[in-house]
Formats: sequence, C-alpha cells, structure tokens
Amino acid sequence: MQIIGELINSSRSQVKEAIEKGDSGLIKKLARDQVEAGADIIDVNAGTFYKKEPELLRWLTAAVQEEVDCPLCIDSPNPAALEAALEICRGKALVNSITAEEKRFKEIMPLVKKYGTGVIALTIDKKGISTDKQYRLSIAEDLVKALVAEGVSEDDIYIDPLVEPVSVESSNGLIALETIRGITERGWKVHSVCAFSNISFGLPGRKLLNQGFAVMAVTSGLDSAILNPCDRHLMGMVKAAMAIADRDPYCKGYINAYKKGLFQ
Amino acid sequence: MQIIGELINSSRSQVKEAIEKGDSGLIKKLARDQVEAGADIIDVNAGTFYKKEPELLRWLTAAVQEEVDCPLCIDSPNPAALEAALEICRGKALVNSITAEEKRFKEIMPLVKKYGTGVIALTIDKKGISTDKQYRLSIAEDLVKALVAEGVSEDDIYIDPLVEPVSVESSNGLIALETIRGITERGWKVHSVCAFSNISFGLPGRKLLNQGFAVMAVTSGLDSAILNPCDRHLMGMVKAAMAIADRDPYCKGYINAYKKGLFQ
Repeated sequence: MQIIGELINSSRSQVKEAIEKGDSGLIKKLARDQVEAGADIIDVNAGTFYKKEPELLRWLTAAVQEEVDCPLCIDSPNPAALEAALEICRGKALVNSITAEEKRFKEIMPLVKKYGTGVIALTIDKKGISTDKQYRLSIAEDLVKALVAEGVSEDDIYIDPLVEPVSVESSNGLIALETIRGITERGWKVHSVCAFSNISFGLPGRKLLNQGFAVMAVTSGLDSAILNPCDRHLMGMVKAAMAIADRDPYCKGYINAYKKGLFQ
Repeated sequence: MQIIGELINSSRSQVKEAIEKGDSGLIKKLARDQVEAGADIIDVNAGTFYKKEPELLRWLTAAVQEEVDCPLCIDSPNPAALEAALEICRGKALVNSITAEEKRFKEIMPLVKKYGTGVIALTIDKKGISTDKQYRLSIAEDLVKALVAEGVSEDDIYIDPLVEPVSVESSNGLIALETIRGITERGWKVHSVCAFSNISFGLPGRKLLNQGFAVMAVTSGLDSAILNPCDRHLMGMVKAAMAIADRDPYCKGYINAYKKGLFQ
C-alpha cells in the first residue's frame, strides 16, 4: 500500500496562511512529519490561489524538496501550475490528475509525457460522475487504454474511482468499492487510488466512517491511498485491513508498523 | 444487525468471581449496561465451571432475567447446562451452539425443538475446522438442510463461519468472510453470526484488527454479531460499516445511534 500524504493542501487554513506568509518552515515540518508517519509520496496543492497557483505550487514543491527526498504528487487540474512545479521537481513525480474529459486529457497528457510522470486518472468523463458502477468501470478501462496508447506504462497509471458521500446516495460507497474491485480483478499492473474523507461528508462521526471505508477499500484491493498519515488510528486501520485481507504475508507489515509506533 | 452482548462469560475473571460469590448485582449491571449500549440479545456462559455449569448457567439466566427483558443466548456445548437454563428462560432463547458433528447435533437438537429456540450452528464437522472455504460453506449448507429437516425455520438458524486467527494462517480472515458472503448470497432467511476477537489472537493492537474485521464482516453481509456492545468504538465501526455498505437506508441507524451517544 502506497501512502500519499495529503496535508500540504491550501484548502487547509494553516497551510494557506503559511503559503501567504512564505513560511516554508511549516511546509517542511508537514513534509517531514508525514514521511516519518509512513507517507511514501507527498501531495502538494495550492489550488485555492487561482491565478497565483503556478508560482505558489512551484514554491511548495521547492520547499518540500528542501526537506525530504520522497516523490511528490503534484496536485492541480491547471496545466500551467502543473508545469511550473514539474520543471523543478526532482525524480519521478505523480500528476494529480487527468480525467476522461477530452479537454483536460489533451491539456495534461503532454506534461505527463514530457516529464515522464505517473498520473492519477479520475473516472469522470464528459457526462460527469456516473452512478452506474458498470459505466464508471468502463471509464476506468477507457482511461487505461488511452493512457497506454500515449505510451504511459500500466504501472504509472493510478485510477481513482471517485468517492462520493453516502449521505447523498446510499450506494455511493459500494460504487467506488466495486470500481476498485473491478480494477483489481482485471489483473492489470494499473494502481487504484483514492481519498477516503469524501465518503462521510454531511454525516456526524466522520472519522469512523472514513476508517470503515478505508478498511473496505483495502479489502477490495486498493493499493494507494491519499490520506493523513499522521492520523494514527486511520493508518492502523489500513495496516490491520492489509493483514486481515491476506495482503500482508505473516502480518509482517502490520507488526513492523506497530513496533515502530506508527499507529495506535 | 443484531447485537449479542458477550460480557457475561465466566472466562472473564470479574464474571467468574461474581458467579462464585453468588453476586447477582454485577451480573445484572452487565446485563443492563449491555442493553443500554445497544445489545439486542444477552449471551450467558458459565463454561469454566464444568460440573457445576448446569446449576450456574441457570443462576446466570435467572439473574439476567430479573434485570432485563431482552432475549437470551444460552451458551454451552453441554446439553444438561443448556436444559437447566432453558427450563427457566422466558421468551424465545437462542442456543449457542450446535455443530455438524453427529454426537453434538443429536444431543442438542432435541432441546432446540422442545424449547422452540433459535440456534447458532458452527461450521465444524467430524473432520474439525476446514481451511477450504468451499468445504466450510458446504458444511453451512448441510447444517441448514439438517436443521430445516428437523423443523427449525430458516429465520431461527444462525450460521457461525468460525473466525480463526490471521496470525496462524494468513487466509483465515478471508475464509470466514467468504463463508459469510456465501450464506448472504444464497438468499436464505438464515442469519450469519460471529465473534470478531479471535481474528487478532497472537498479534499486537488487537482492537484495531477486531474493528477492521468487523467492518469486513458487515460488508460481506454479516447480520448478527457477538461482541462487547460497551466498546463504543467497535459499535461505531459496525454502525459506520452498515451505512457505507448500503445496509442502512438514509444512514438512519447510524445517525440515530450517534444521537443517542452509543458510539464515539
């Protein structure tokens, strides 16, 4: 399970303020904390700054790279912002994200090729987000085909099934889970990835719902997750789910994470 | 989801001591606490007392019935103990448990019929506990057929898939889950039931593993669980899983339990 740390996002007030002040200390601390908590990749997002996004996403990228060596997930739908960050990004980045919408695909694909990045592909097309699980899986298949045709290797493709709130439609959890399972059962080298917290939007006790959905997603075969790695209980649930779902031989990953004190 | 409260069990030192002293106060408190925490059925077990089990299981049954009105789950493989308790048990009881072993089936079946009880049937036969998930499911099918042939209605049958530790064999979680899913997918009126804590035997951080397994079992269709209802986090995970797995229309059960403060 690859963990993509989600904390460096300008939609969080603490991060927004640090970006506005040019306070790289907080950004570096968040990067370091997430890596120490078990993140494999650090997501950077400056999406709330609109016109200044390219400049600020580049600044975030530089700040994180001054502190840690792990790969970055450059998180924007804006090609100018993506390129500003990718230009200075060391090592192989992950672009978050492309979709099956023609305009977005055409705008972002050249950057994926130019910088040799991995790419997160959201199962959304010109019709929007489908509530038909078969159709959503067919978008995933179309995205994989289109990306492979562009020369992206399966191992660099991360399909995001799009998690929508159960408070809006009670089958939203199952639709995402069945998309993950569908991707897993195809036997591709393609990854599946998602964030969990959208599942609980509009409901009380959100952490519980997010933890529960994380367990279900792991059981369905999810192999990458965008989450807060400093949430020790959530990390513990992910590790526990890996062990119970027979995805962690001899429970070694679980026991090692426990010994390192990575969860509670 | 039916919750069977597991706390009144003589394998717990506090309960053992209360039984030895004839202290019905503690037993009543445990019964009341579990009902208030959301238990639908109270399990009573005096199995550690061997020869005195019939007398003491009857005493436990009486004590619980003096305090609460909910149904009881009379928990013993000993026909004499079961009958001693069933004789005084008000309302419809649940017998825990029968198996596909000929001797045990023949000894316990007459009590199920005589007292018109529901019955928990463990998927174990003369060969013991199978690690072949197809075979384990076939034992479940044989048990259902045999019980129905004896006149037990499907709705009174609770199949327990037997949860074994993942520390012993990494596929033990999946075997139990697939047995639950198999029972669910048969479309019978038969219930599935299990306790969770065995999954984590021999590993650290057991609560996390138990919670994770509970979520997976709910996702697989489990409709009854033997657990500690006073464990507010475990109860919350079960309620959350029901909501995410589209088994709780409009998340009403989840929201109501939250409003009542039944979980955290």
